[in-house]
Amino acid sequence: MWMSELAARSGVPVPTVKYYLREGLLPPGEATGATRAIYSEDHVRRLRLIRALVEVGGLRLADVNRVLAAVDDSGTPLHEVLGVAQSAISPVGPSPSARSLERVDALIRRRRWRVAPDSVNRTVLARALDALDDADDALPDDALSGYAETVSGLAEVEVPTIDTTSSETAVRQTVLRTVLIEPVLLALRRMAHEHVSSRALRRRR
Amino acid sequence: MWMSELAARSGVPVPTVKYYLREGLLPPGEATGATRAIYSEDHVRRLRLIRALVEVGGLRLADVNRVLAAVDDSGTPLHEVLGVAQSAISPVGPSPSARSLERVDALIRRRRWRVAPDSVNRTVLARALDALDDADDALPDDALSGYAETVSGLAEVEVPTIDTTSSETAVRQTVLRTVLIEPVLLALRRMAHEHVSSRALRRRR
Repeated sequence: MWMSELAARSGVPVPTVKYYLREGLLPPGEATGATRAIYSEDHVRRLRLIRALVEVGGLRLADVNRVLAAVDDSGTPLHEVLGVAQSAISPVGPSPSARSLERVDALIRRRRWRVAPDSVNRTVLARALDALDDADDALPDDALSGYAETVSGLAEVEVPTIDTTSSETAVRQTVLRTVLIEPVLLALRRMAHEHVSSRALRRRR
Repeated sequence: MWMSELAARSGVPVPTVKYYLREGLLPPGEATGATRAIYSEDHVRRLRLIRALVEVGGLRLADVNRVLAAVDDSGTPLHEVLGVAQSAISPVGPSPSARSLERVDALIRRRRWRVAPDSVNRTVLARALDALDDADDALPDDALSGYAETVSGLAEVEVPTIDTTSSETAVRQTVLRTVLIEPVLLALRRMAHEHVSSRALRRRR
């Protein structure tokens, strides 16, 4: 296909496609003359992945490059590629307290979760526990375990629906579903709270 | 107690306490001279609520005022006060599509949830569904129902632990737990995804 069709199929405007070509994020098409080239389905998949990383994941181009390098390195197992994508879309923040990190590690051991020692998720969770401590509303261990049980149930249903036929599709879906399902879950939780509060407190003041 | 103790107990610095007094967010203490006043436990509770709204909820003072007015109006039932607080901490964004709003309303009817017709949670959820549609990864109705079932289970456990002895405490806890538990849930979900992916994809490329 020509570049105009590539742009339409991927939802990325032509000037942006040219920019990604210049930056080396998108491999060149097959040249058919001095100024024209033909693009393939691989290019569509790659552009759709870049678009998800930028628009949904909020990644800067340097981080997009890091994710694409992992996707392109055939020696990196898919679950590690997904780990690179997940860490790229996670906010960097202050270091968590040793105490909260130890709580997180105890939880991981208790559940026998396979979580990489350098996983960004350990740090993000420990920081979230610190924030609750700081607000004088520490999360009890049984509540933390309850939440872990709940999300395990979610993950067992969610992960198998990821399309792993190509690592680009798998990374794109993982990023989309990590980022875009999160607001759905949070809005539903707030709504369920509204329902339960309304039922319990209708006549209370 | 004197203002210095009030500041220490509430975690709000003295200059900020004085600012809240001037702005009328905090009622004056009992005057004991030309320049001194005595403050009560009510002041501590009020300041802790303001601090949670500002630091955790990210509210501007105008919105803090709106929440406090609902807290102070004894004619407003507690669940409506909590609704005011919840809408104050929810981001305002573009209007959702009619199609997604209709999906949300169908879900509310199906679950017989008591959700106010003007609840900000309807809008936020519909916008989140729109974002998935835009990414060509629309959430199927059965997945949406599954998530609703999951968060219902959470809310039934979470809401009864809110301390409703005073509406200030109830609002403060609701805001803290809405905002601060959310990152815990999301980090746990990402971690559970890491575990399930790692188990399933260890040898996949």
